Amino acid sequence: MTFDHADFEQLGQEMIQLRRDFHKHPESGWTEFRTTARIIDELEKLGLTVQYGPSIHVKEKMFGLPQPQILEECWQRAMQETNRPDLVEAMKGGYTGCLTVIEGALPGPTVGIRVDIDCNDVEEANDPKHPPCALGFRSTHANCMHACGHDAHGAIGVGVAKLLCACKDQLRGKVLLVFQPGEEGLRGAASLTAAGHFSQCDYFFGGHVGLLDGLKVGAVAAGGHGFLASTKFDVTFHGYPSHAAAPERGRNAIAAAAMATLGMLSIPRHGDGASRINVGTFHGGTGRNVIPARADLCVETRGGTTEINAFMEAEARRICQGAADMYGCTLETRFMGSAGCIVCDEPLVEQTIQVLSQMEGVDQILRDINFNGGEDVTTMMRDVQEHGGQVIELVFGMPLPAPHHNDYFDVDERVIPLAIRIFAQLALTAGDWKAP
Amino acid sequence: MTFDHADFEQLGQEMIQLRRDFHKHPESGWTEFRTTARIIDELEKLGLTVQYGPSIHVKEKMFGLPQPQILEECWQRAMQETNRPDLVEAMKGGYTGCLTVIEGALPGPTVGIRVDIDCNDVEEANDPKHPPCALGFRSTHANCMHACGHDAHGAIGVGVAKLLCACKDQLRGKVLLVFQPGEEGLRGAASLTAAGHFSQCDYFFGGHVGLLDGLKVGAVAAGGHGFLASTKFDVTFHGYPSHAAAPERGRNAIAAAAMATLGMLSIPRHGDGASRINVGTFHGGTGRNVIPARADLCVETRGGTTEINAFMEAEARRICQGAADMYGCTLETRFMGSAGCIVCDEPLVEQTIQVLSQMEGVDQILRDINFNGGEDVTTMMRDVQEHGGQVIELVFGMPLPAPHHNDYFDVDERVIPLAIRIFAQLALTAGDWKAP
Amino acid sequence: MTFDHADFEQLGQEMIQLRRDFHKHPESGWTEFRTTARIIDELEKLGLTVQYGPSIHVKEKMFGLPQPQILEECWQRAMQETNRPDLVEAMKGGYTGCLTVIEGALPGPTVGIRVDIDCNDVEEANDPKHPPCALGFRSTHANCMHACGHDAHGAIGVGVAKLLCACKDQLRGKVLLVFQPGEEGLRGAASLTAAGHFSQCDYFFGGHVGLLDGLKVGAVAAGGHGFLASTKFDVTFHGYPSHAAAPERGRNAIAAAAMATLGMLSIPRHGDGASRINVGTFHGGTGRNVIPARADLCVETRGGTTEINAFMEAEARRICQGAADMYGCTLETRFMGSAGCIVCDEPLVEQTIQVLSQMEGVDQILRDINFNGGEDVTTMMRDVQEHGGQVIELVFGMPLPAPHHNDYFDVDERVIPLAIRIFAQLALTAGDWKAP
Amino acid sequence: MTFDHADFEQLGQEMIQLRRDFHKHPESGWTEFRTTARIIDELEKLGLTVQYGPSIHVKEKMFGLPQPQILEECWQRAMQETNRPDLVEAMKGGYTGCLTVIEGALPGPTVGIRVDIDCNDVEEANDPKHPPCALGFRSTHANCMHACGHDAHGAIGVGVAKLLCACKDQLRGKVLLVFQPGEEGLRGAASLTAAGHFSQCDYFFGGHVGLLDGLKVGAVAAGGHGFLASTKFDVTFHGYPSHAAAPERGRNAIAAAAMATLGMLSIPRHGDGASRINVGTFHGGTGRNVIPARADLCVETRGGTTEINAFMEAEARRICQGAADMYGCTLETRFMGSAGCIVCDEPLVEQTIQVLSQMEGVDQILRDINFNGGEDVTTMMRDVQEHGGQVIELVFGMPLPAPHHNDYFDVDERVIPLAIRIFAQLALTAGDWKAP
Repeated sequence: MTFDHADFEQLGQEMIQLRRDFHKHPESGWTEFRTTARIIDELEKLGLTVQYGPSIHVKEKMFGLPQPQILEECWQRAMQETNRPDLVEAMKGGYTGCLTVIEGALPGPTVGIRVDIDCNDVEEANDPKHPPCALGFRSTHANCMHACGHDAHGAIGVGVAKLLCACKDQLRGKVLLVFQPGEEGLRGAASLTAAGHFSQCDYFFGGHVGLLDGLKVGAVAAGGHGFLASTKFDVTFHGYPSHAAAPERGRNAIAAAAMATLGMLSIPRHGDGASRINVGTFHGGTGRNVIPARADLCVETRGGTTEINAFMEAEARRICQGAADMYGCTLETRFMGSAGCIVCDEPLVEQTIQVLSQMEGVDQILRDINFNGGEDVTTMMRDVQEHGGQVIELVFGMPLPAPHHNDYFDVDERVIPLAIRIFAQLALTAGDWKAP
Repeated sequence: MTFDHADFEQLGQEMIQLRRDFHKHPESGWTEFRTTARIIDELEKLGLTVQYGPSIHVKEKMFGLPQPQILEECWQRAMQETNRPDLVEAMKGGYTGCLTVIEGALPGPTVGIRVDIDCNDVEEANDPKHPPCALGFRSTHANCMHACGHDAHGAIGVGVAKLLCACKDQLRGKVLLVFQPGEEGLRGAASLTAAGHFSQCDYFFGGHVGLLDGLKVGAVAAGGHGFLASTKFDVTFHGYPSHAAAPERGRNAIAAAAMATLGMLSIPRHGDGASRINVGTFHGGTGRNVIPARADLCVETRGGTTEINAFMEAEARRICQGAADMYGCTLETRFMGSAGCIVCDEPLVEQTIQVLSQMEGVDQILRDINFNGGEDVTTMMRDVQEHGGQVIELVFGMPLPAPHHNDYFDVDERVIPLAIRIFAQLALTAGDWKAP
Repeated sequence: MTFDHADFEQLGQEMIQLRRDFHKHPESGWTEFRTTARIIDELEKLGLTVQYGPSIHVKEKMFGLPQPQILEECWQRAMQETNRPDLVEAMKGGYTGCLTVIEGALPGPTVGIRVDIDCNDVEEANDPKHPPCALGFRSTHANCMHACGHDAHGAIGVGVAKLLCACKDQLRGKVLLVFQPGEEGLRGAASLTAAGHFSQCDYFFGGHVGLLDGLKVGAVAAGGHGFLASTKFDVTFHGYPSHAAAPERGRNAIAAAAMATLGMLSIPRHGDGASRINVGTFHGGTGRNVIPARADLCVETRGGTTEINAFMEAEARRICQGAADMYGCTLETRFMGSAGCIVCDEPLVEQTIQVLSQMEGVDQILRDINFNGGEDVTTMMRDVQEHGGQVIELVFGMPLPAPHHNDYFDVDERVIPLAIRIFAQLALTAGDWKAP
Repeated sequence: MTFDHADFEQLGQEMIQLRRDFHKHPESGWTEFRTTARIIDELEKLGLTVQYGPSIHVKEKMFGLPQPQILEECWQRAMQETNRPDLVEAMKGGYTGCLTVIEGALPGPTVGIRVDIDCNDVEEANDPKHPPCALGFRSTHANCMHACGHDAHGAIGVGVAKLLCACKDQLRGKVLLVFQPGEEGLRGAASLTAAGHFSQCDYFFGGHVGLLDGLKVGAVAAGGHGFLASTKFDVTFHGYPSHAAAPERGRNAIAAAAMATLGMLSIPRHGDGASRINVGTFHGGTGRNVIPARADLCVETRGGTTEINAFMEAEARRICQGAADMYGCTLETRFMGSAGCIVCDEPLVEQTIQVLSQMEGVDQILRDINFNGGEDVTTMMRDVQEHGGQVIELVFGMPLPAPHHNDYFDVDERVIPLAIRIFAQLALTAGDWKAP
């Protein structure tokens, strides 16, 4: 990579500023209007053609869309905040995310790189000890926070584009850069995958900052296992309202949902591997003295294998039905998203480690780590593998001041320029590799 | 009562229209800005002096005030909807409700009549078979509905004022008319009582439409028992957030609140009399894949005696603490309102029945009925009794298409003119009674 | 009643000793072998003919029989303890209880008097402060205790027989004395009733010591309301066993039963009157490291009306099914007994009060008390009423050192001679009453 | 090993018969009186000196002893069934299990071999399709069954003694054979370990039949991971009894225990590795119409690491306390046993595989398998390792007709002679190995 050191220094600082801009204006899944517009704007400034809006999605695979009113409110907010209302306008209805292709000067393979850009539904800590507060880029959106590092991911993606555009003459083949919406909840990958964007990729890279405890910036994991399969669904218990003085005339939906919650948390652990269950939100009832007639739960299951996840999902659904029956309520469930397990391709792992081992700033290389979580990048990866390509997930280590999804989570920003260089270097080297 | 029949016919029709206006614009406790303004406007048109705003309340006894943001939003809405913004302005901050005194031409006792004017937190049925839909006065406020008849109560109160103003020359003594905010949740009576409005009442009348099954308009109950004592409180469980893939790092507030809910519902029935418990609302969690760090419950207990209610409240509080401890969460509870039991005064019951038995349109008189519910009119009544006055609660029977607090609840509007006549007749007759 | 005072003194002392004998050898429902044999022996010594064994029962109405092994063990124990093995032999299989008729010298009505003789499944307190310990008649049977006063009832029944036999010449008509087995669990009355023993009764008296708080010996209640209707049933959850290290291969019956227990305890209170639910016993699982494959519950519901009890039973059954479904278990339920509500006949209440008001030792007479419990004497009473007879339940007040069914419960033995005199006096006076 | 093939054939058949004898007379932890006596008898016939009775145990480390009455009943049963009452007499009080040492003709290392001999608390299937039924050796002890293969283990241990005694001239060093009581519940190893029996072992072998799915006889696993650390404890909830018609006067111990059960089952899964929780038994209440005053739970936790198990145990204990507090009950907990994790020594794994790879009948060798369970052999192993010895656990594969601890579990008896040969061969080869 022939890129001036001082220039790269500056690129890094710019991308850190971009990350802070994303952090200050977090947008959750399918509402990344302002975020996407900012990314497109940056990419267009590089002379790239960017795809976005309804044409990059398959509408019926856009799982877990927010309620229309929420979509509308977020869209209005983005219209206020953006400097590119033309782009936000084009994404109306939740058609967020974008893709671009960087064409190399020389022939070669197609390399996909995917980053995700949505935030979490978490209210950020308001504490001067929390760096985003101290430095003035705490989230300005209520109950929205980048508590999983996707703000850094977005900035890394833009940085990779900038760096590769500056090195186009060395680039063999082309690089497909994907900015995916709605990773939280495993909602966004299915739609982009169904649209066929990834079938031509020879190599496909995902990446995530943080994730593993006890690492410093400079530690990088290449490949691994433990992407838990996962299913997301919503549950509504419908009861019947009544005055609380005559409770026998009502059907108590909160009681049914509470029973279901405890029932789901008590699904037996699985002897064959990891399993998880979470009831992430619980909303029920209308007033203190009314027997609650409705309760809504957001549920997710995970499993170390697709089978374990299927076991968890089947148990959870049966438990909800049983709990509804116990209280004479009716049950409504809605599928919201899912992701499978994935295995990284060993040849690509070897080649990646080869590249990493020669890079300045990479002090520690881990392999076969346990991801112990779910990512819907696996949906894209499966598609790539089914079409003959190879895939790998990288982890860019950094110190973690608090767990992911916690309101004190923060990014060690030194990870941003390092990740940009790694992705770019891999793309530039891919032309050397033996075709899959 | 010398009041022209045709005039009264018209008065009844006007008050039915007024009830529909209230029904179409329901406002929940401490946000009855538009409702109160309309009432004051009607009373002032009669030439009456009306008391309202901060001066009629004792601020520290205004229990269960909504969150400031909600108060503000409702106030803004009322400012939009009212034709008396001067009055709404004066009630800013939740100082709703009003009182007026009708002075008779002749000396005599002081008679208190209290009606309540707040709505329920219920989304009204949207079904052409539901009369308010068919007749075009369905609630226009989301999640607000007059599902307990307080729309009729407000209209009855105004009607009584109109009728008595027309008969002032026959009125011995004076009538204190009270339009109470925030009866739902037992929140509004304490503040008005503490302000000392009721200490001069010789007789005090409460009244409610509906309540008892199987009655027609024309059936009236005078006195009774079974005003359940009640306590209202809010509970917050504070946990700790974490990614759902590492749930052991979090503290699950939804699990604690679900356990507490089931625990509270399972408090033993009491062998000495009626008891009730309700968890009316349950809100917890921020996102599907985050271990929920907070959950909020609205709770109420009731008891056939003050002792039973105290038992229920003590059990409920201990259960919440135990459930928080089970899941390593911390607990926060907030008192929101309460009401005691009451016993109607037998001499006033006898006198009331005497009056009712001679009234046209009263076809059935019940006594010693079981109210089986709670009303914070008991707070006012206790004050009247402690100052030597007598109290009674009336029930104006009507067919019930659905239980109170149900989204299909509706008022048989023929009860409105009847209740107006009954209150007025009692006030006009009170001068005959032997002083308490 | 012409009965020598000193003789009666002695009769009272004998019956107190008899009560202590019953207390020391308590036998639960359908295993009252030794108890019944002792009673028959006493009655036969009076020259009475006693009916007992299979002929007095209708086998298919003997609800809630213990397991065959338990029946056998208790029978063996009785064979060891009795001095009348001939009688115990005749009751093998659970055919306990007996009846006798005392024929008066003069014509007159038929008066039924019923006492119950079974004990509770409670381990008696072993504390020198507990009188049965101090006086040496603590229960010698593990987990069996007369904690409801049926030991006194049995002694009262024998005492009534002795007293009436001594006054036969004054007795008009005849007295049917019933010693009922299996009142606890509402199991024994149905069988005796179905056999037709009570259809000829003109008057029918039940009675119970204690029950009401705050009374002294000398206080007697005649008539009342609040016999709660009740249903008893057993529930078995069938799961599937597995090693606890592979819990997903099992089906956890304890989890299902725990969920059902909490579900049943949380059935809503009923606005129309009293309700009760109890899960009295819970037995599940075979070993610490085995997923439990079976759990058994003993359940009872009660209601202030037959309708409320039916509501409670239906809710409980549905909840058990729902909980079984939640955990993939199957459900088995077994009906074990039931009793309805009853209303005492007002003419008989009046006549009884008339008699009581003239009796020495009766210091306080209560009427229309709230029994707040269930008794299957109501099954007999309903039969009597359907055949034209009148019924009443008496309560013989006494101080209560601990609640009924508590391990410190005890009888104030002065109540025994008083209750004997009251029953006898009522039987002797019945000839004066106007036939029903 | 120079052992005649026909002789070995016969030895195998004898040990299969011995296994069936153990199977027919299963005895649970600390009550293996008859089983131990039979083993001692067999060993003494070989001329071996056997250690048994109180002298081989450290009384205060005998965790999880049964209730005295159970111990006594089981001991009486064994006295009836044994042909060596002298031995059973010597073990009175639960001092079961035994050890023996086979001295080789030549100098060499000390090799420990441990087998366990207790049964499960499971009622065996009574179904002609279940081989022990068809072949007439179904358990004759109610609620006791060898459902984990310890009947085969006992026979294997005796077989190893027989084989090695026949090859003493080739044996270098000595073999310590341990027949451990009370493995289920992780109760027996601590006492034997504390007595110092294992500190001299250079090599130490444990072994288990079955465990892994999908294996045939001939598959052997040498070494592995996943011995879950585990803690066993009992919990008693103390409430207060009352009549079920006045439930507010009682304190419901079953409700508290049900809440605790659901709470414990809902302890969050651990992101760092496997965790388990089981409430194996639940016994509460005395009678249907008594508020239950006591409930007893048997609980066990497991963890993939000692830390995870400690997390599980701490959560479970806190949850029990919280649940007791919820219902106003008091809590009593009793430690019953525990075991840690263990790591097999790699040099011994290598040497073992070397031996296995040359043995006839061993068709498949697995290494680094996941045991996914707990074994208190780890307590002995840790002691051996701390004294400088090496340890390994073997698994002797066999088809599994049903999961371990299931009532249809059965042993493929061909595994018995194979396991005998493997243990013997390892002992005979140990003299070749480089000392640890």
